[in-house]
Amino acid sequence: MTTSPSADEPQGNYDVDYVVRYTFGGTGKQPSPLGGGEFRDRDEATEQLNNLLQTLADIGFLTEVRPSDRTTLLVFIRAPEKSLLRATHTSRVRDWLYGLRNTQPGGESSPGPQSGAERLRAIHYMLTAPVEDGGANITPKYGQWKNVDSIFPLHDDKTNQAWMRDWSKKTFLTKEDLDQIRDKFGEKIGFYFAFLQSYFRFLFFPALFGFSSWVMLGYYSPIYAIVNCVWCVVFVEYWKRQEVDLGIRWQVRGVSVLSSKNRHFKPEREVQDKTTGELRPIFPWTKRLQIQLLQIPFALVAVIALGAVIATCFAIEIFISEVYNGPLKTYLVFIPTILLSSLLPISSTILTKVATKLTELENYETKEEHDVAFIQKMLVVNFITSYLAIFLTAFVYVPFANIIVPYLDVFRVTVRPFVSQEDEKTINHSDFKIDPHRLRKQVIYFAVTAQIVNTCMETVVPFIMRKLAIKYKEYSEEKANNEKGSPAYDDHPDEADLLKKVRNEADLPEYDVTDDLREMVIQFGYLSLFSTVWPLVPVSFLFNNWLELRSDFFKICKEFKRPVPERADTIGPWLDTLGLLAWIGSITSSALVYMFSNEGLGRHGNAGEITGWVLMVTIFFAEHIYLAVRYVVEKTMSKIETPSIRQERAQKLLLRKNILGTMADDHSTIASVGNVDGPDEIDRASLEEDARTRTLQEARPSDRFWGRQKNWKESLQIGTKIIESYQATGVKKQQ
Amino acid sequence: MTTSPSADEPQGNYDVDYVVRYTFGGTGKQPSPLGGGEFRDRDEATEQLNNLLQTLADIGFLTEVRPSDRTTLLVFIRAPEKSLLRATHTSRVRDWLYGLRNTQPGGESSPGPQSGAERLRAIHYMLTAPVEDGGANITPKYGQWKNVDSIFPLHDDKTNQAWMRDWSKKTFLTKEDLDQIRDKFGEKIGFYFAFLQSYFRFLFFPALFGFSSWVMLGYYSPIYAIVNCVWCVVFVEYWKRQEVDLGIRWQVRGVSVLSSKNRHFKPEREVQDKTTGELRPIFPWTKRLQIQLLQIPFALVAVIALGAVIATCFAIEIFISEVYNGPLKTYLVFIPTILLSSLLPISSTILTKVATKLTELENYETKEEHDVAFIQKMLVVNFITSYLAIFLTAFVYVPFANIIVPYLDVFRVTVRPFVSQEDEKTINHSDFKIDPHRLRKQVIYFAVTAQIVNTCMETVVPFIMRKLAIKYKEYSEEKANNEKGSPAYDDHPDEADLLKKVRNEADLPEYDVTDDLREMVIQFGYLSLFSTVWPLVPVSFLFNNWLELRSDFFKICKEFKRPVPERADTIGPWLDTLGLLAWIGSITSSALVYMFSNEGLGRHGNAGEITGWVLMVTIFFAEHIYLAVRYVVEKTMSKIETPSIRQERAQKLLLRKNILGTMADDHSTIASVGNVDGPDEIDRASLEEDARTRTLQEARPSDRFWGRQKNWKESLQIGTKIIESYQATGVKKQQ
Repeated sequence: MTTSPSADEPQGNYDVDYVVRYTFGGTGKQPSPLGGGEFRDRDEATEQLNNLLQTLADIGFLTEVRPSDRTTLLVFIRAPEKSLLRATHTSRVRDWLYGLRNTQPGGESSPGPQSGAERLRAIHYMLTAPVEDGGANITPKYGQWKNVDSIFPLHDDKTNQAWMRDWSKKTFLTKEDLDQIRDKFGEKIGFYFAFLQSYFRFLFFPALFGFSSWVMLGYYSPIYAIVNCVWCVVFVEYWKRQEVDLGIRWQVRGVSVLSSKNRHFKPEREVQDKTTGELRPIFPWTKRLQIQLLQIPFALVAVIALGAVIATCFAIEIFISEVYNGPLKTYLVFIPTILLSSLLPISSTILTKVATKLTELENYETKEEHDVAFIQKMLVVNFITSYLAIFLTAFVYVPFANIIVPYLDVFRVTVRPFVSQEDEKTINHSDFKIDPHRLRKQVIYFAVTAQIVNTCMETVVPFIMRKLAIKYKEYSEEKANNEKGSPAYDDHPDEADLLKKVRNEADLPEYDVTDDLREMVIQFGYLSLFSTVWPLVPVSFLFNNWLELRSDFFKICKEFKRPVPERADTIGPWLDTLGLLAWIGSITSSALVYMFSNEGLGRHGNAGEITGWVLMVTIFFAEHIYLAVRYVVEKTMSKIETPSIRQERAQKLLLRKNILGTMADDHSTIASVGNVDGPDEIDRASLEEDARTRTLQEARPSDRFWGRQKNWKESLQIGTKIIESYQATGVKKQQ
Repeated sequence: MTTSPSADEPQGNYDVDYVVRYTFGGTGKQPSPLGGGEFRDRDEATEQLNNLLQTLADIGFLTEVRPSDRTTLLVFIRAPEKSLLRATHTSRVRDWLYGLRNTQPGGESSPGPQSGAERLRAIHYMLTAPVEDGGANITPKYGQWKNVDSIFPLHDDKTNQAWMRDWSKKTFLTKEDLDQIRDKFGEKIGFYFAFLQSYFRFLFFPALFGFSSWVMLGYYSPIYAIVNCVWCVVFVEYWKRQEVDLGIRWQVRGVSVLSSKNRHFKPEREVQDKTTGELRPIFPWTKRLQIQLLQIPFALVAVIALGAVIATCFAIEIFISEVYNGPLKTYLVFIPTILLSSLLPISSTILTKVATKLTELENYETKEEHDVAFIQKMLVVNFITSYLAIFLTAFVYVPFANIIVPYLDVFRVTVRPFVSQEDEKTINHSDFKIDPHRLRKQVIYFAVTAQIVNTCMETVVPFIMRKLAIKYKEYSEEKANNEKGSPAYDDHPDEADLLKKVRNEADLPEYDVTDDLREMVIQFGYLSLFSTVWPLVPVSFLFNNWLELRSDFFKICKEFKRPVPERADTIGPWLDTLGLLAWIGSITSSALVYMFSNEGLGRHGNAGEITGWVLMVTIFFAEHIYLAVRYVVEKTMSKIETPSIRQERAQKLLLRKNILGTMADDHSTIASVGNVDGPDEIDRASLEEDARTRTLQEARPSDRFWGRQKNWKESLQIGTKIIESYQATGVKKQQ
């Protein structure tokens, strides 16, 4: 890999490394009553642009400015080789100091960036790192750089399309494909695709087993439940191992120690570090702990709020679909759906805002800690919105419906606006029977329908919206141009295509891999928790994930700005979440198997036959057996050496052998001097040496002790005498 | 610390580093029928002694030979400074290659051993390591060195006594005391004493709380149970942190990667390592896995066997003490005790032998893995022998005694040998009542009586036996001397005391810290599992452990050979055991509180009032709350920085700052060239440079793109124009 960008990026991007979108429209500002506000904004914008371009020039970048639309302009950045070499070298030294690299990078002569991602990352670091770390400290939308809207690289369309064509033809991505993703998009996204690929590969087994189980064993089979739980455990442990292997292969193992400053960190005070003597801004962790304790009431509020919403809609749905028998039933069935679809997003949004605020209050020093804390808070919300409905059906509706249904009459109020008084009287719930297939239908919905809908919403709809937005923008610009009689901007014909592409890309949102990871982990949860209900769940997921990998790649290329490559050596807190879901899966699977093994109707066809303590004992044993299996799998997995680990170990061994070999040579040369031929000199010499160091001390008894047998031959003589004086009678002769 | 031994060891040991006990008595050999067997043994012994002394001389050691008793002689070894420097240097290089040290040790000029323990360890390594690792490969009792009975260092009596006097006066050992233990005995034993000290310190809180709980809250208090469980969690996590801190302080962190070869390893075949090209003897891990699966039936057999023994004795005891009312009752009560005391050790010994055999079959490559595997197998045996009795009382006797007692009549057979037929008829179990205090009495026994008896058996009795053995040996030697008319050996008056001491020490057994660790961990188990029954358990342990630390030190000094210092950075598999015990404690504590909260008599005074499912639900919630608390404590603890970790981090920070500072200086010098004054040269120069590299290619559009604004000032002009052409109407003028 050469250091010039020309080998990595085709000419289509004109060697542009980054584009800065600079806004000067002042869309949010009120015109000042004094007038001249326009001009003040304009002067401010011009001054900031001055600062920006000067800063970029100071760190050695080439710049070009082009207009974009009415309120923004684009600054194209390109890094000349010298600055880039320097930046790459600094970054590698930083890695070495933090222990990520074993060999100290050579001086200024170290080679340039090894991949497109490393190049982009180095440049981004130069642009955004604080000055004391050697960067230009350009912080988009913040502080001095308010007008800088975003800094983003350009998509490499040719390569993207080549890959999409290639992958749509094959089932599995190879290791080289994943390496290529990493070379282009960075390790964080590379890890996501590697995870998706591993998950996809692993899904073949439960898909096959689930299918045969569905054919031969029926539903709620204990054998399937056990195999499913063991599979979940093995997959999670396998992925942990893969992370280590990939970390070594991509040389990012341990990169979590590097952290980027959280720009919203508000330190309480500055403290002089006793050991280094420098001032460090700190926020006491005791205060943070107190705010972290607020997570508990937040979780409770989330559970209660979302739970109430879901439970209420659930109850209304049961009432209308199974109890109510009056007119308009087919239309009224949609009421709970409408309620749910409106209330749930609102509640989730409110809770998300609260979680964001709480995380900001916790005031983390690094961006990574901040993100992890936010993800952890949102876990409760995610779990409830994804799983509570099925939980209610499985563990509340089926066991207790007969008791609860009479109380559902309160929901007549939902029906009242639509039907008259007399018709209401026709509601009769003595005919109510528990629908045993409700649970399965619900699981099928989540496993198949919801996944398809989700893929469409995620990939297809934004794509269409994007195209419409572009068309609308073109249309309104043409209209404006026609009014003014001249085109908005006058591009050189050479650059017209590039600028059109860049303007479109500048409008795209920024990509966050967390959302895709969340989606995959929640999907894994359905598999782990509820697939005993319908064993074809993994089959559906298998097909979905083949499509998901390719559609996610399509989404990144077409619907988001090209992400700035970031390094990572793990998928983060989602790994713990996977383990947690596998754990909960052991509990729910055992409970489901026990409760429903006769199609949910108990031994006598009566759903109320579930014994409390047998259920709890089943859960107790299932969970602890699961934990024991997990322990065993963990230990076994840690013994297996992946190729990267073996290679790393071999390299260390070689190095070790070489150095010890050199020492052993020295060792044997010196030792060979003290051989049979001249022992006297060494012993007496060392004794004399010791004696010399103690010239001021008296002669010690130990000297006399050690002087009695001057060398080993004399010792041997004494020893032989002792042995020979041993007689079978066991008495020693005189010495 | 100087390199000469004189500063570390007082003159009393005459600078002796190690003593080799060499046997030539051939105690196990049959005299050959051909005769001359004596002479053959003697020749063999002499030849081995020749080898031994020559080998020692080859690696540069000084030797002295003295007689010991009728069948052994002693070889005194002392290492001259030069060989020692070399050995220490080799050992440090090995540490560096394995990543244990951050700085490469300087060449031959690195300083000598820093402590007595390092010196002894270096010498021991030189004596016993394989030849390819630079050692003499002397393996006691094995192979070529069958006659070498043991290699051991000598106790430093003065220092030992000074410390014992010092510690018997104070309550807490300081960090410096622990450092001293480590300097003398090595890190493995240092970790044991550090653990004991931490455990002792931590016991103050549950002792105080237990005492006040005993006074104010009574028995089986839920508050005490909760506080106890939380304390267990906090202690285990705290100790994990302490291990890290100590590991950094004693510079042994990560030393687990160094491993010593297992001498009994029988490889199956040799395989050429693909990466290094050398032949490695291996034993396939798949075969090992199959043998490891045998642990499961072993555990089951252990549970059944020991469980049967204990349960039977338990049942007999209940029968005799609570049902039987005939004559000789006071004497018959001892039958189960006698049975237990005889059957249990026999079963334990048999199971220990089986475990040892299984571990050997598993054929581990390193000694460390072998030891860990053995400890894990024995865990089941240890748990059953220690805890099953109380489990039976708490969870079988109290809930189910009324059902079981009628079946105990079968145990009349134990009474029959002692009483006549008519007296037997007086057995009446209608008067049987569950003794509610039985459980408490049992726990008091284990917490107080058993601990005292254990300390005596461990420390006092062997000491007395030792003294008696020495007296007996002197007596029999005098008798033999009187028969032969001459003394056995003729010591020089200077050396008489030393040789007497060495001969006594040579007879002592070798110390293994595992037994003491096991004892402490089992004790922790009583605290975690059963202290809700009697809240004064921690008080008793507090006193016991103060004594334990000092008596264990006394035991090491007086009743065992001085241990060869070993390095360790953890207490090993016992750490996982502590966590497991804390976990089980949450289950048993919640169950005990629920079952016994009214003195075991239920709400209506009837012990049969325990509801199954409430019990299971209580356990379910208690256990999961415990796991959540453990997770939280883990995360919180990992945020706390101990002093060593802070220091290490500060050192790295300093280093980092220095190196990056140098780079930043270079950076700014170069960057300052590209300032306002002379921008043209840099940009044109870099463009020309790029152009030079592409002499064979055509002029590319990107060159034209990047050539339009030659420097940042031109870019600024263009940008300013764009901004100024922005009008409030939102239409841009022509460029």
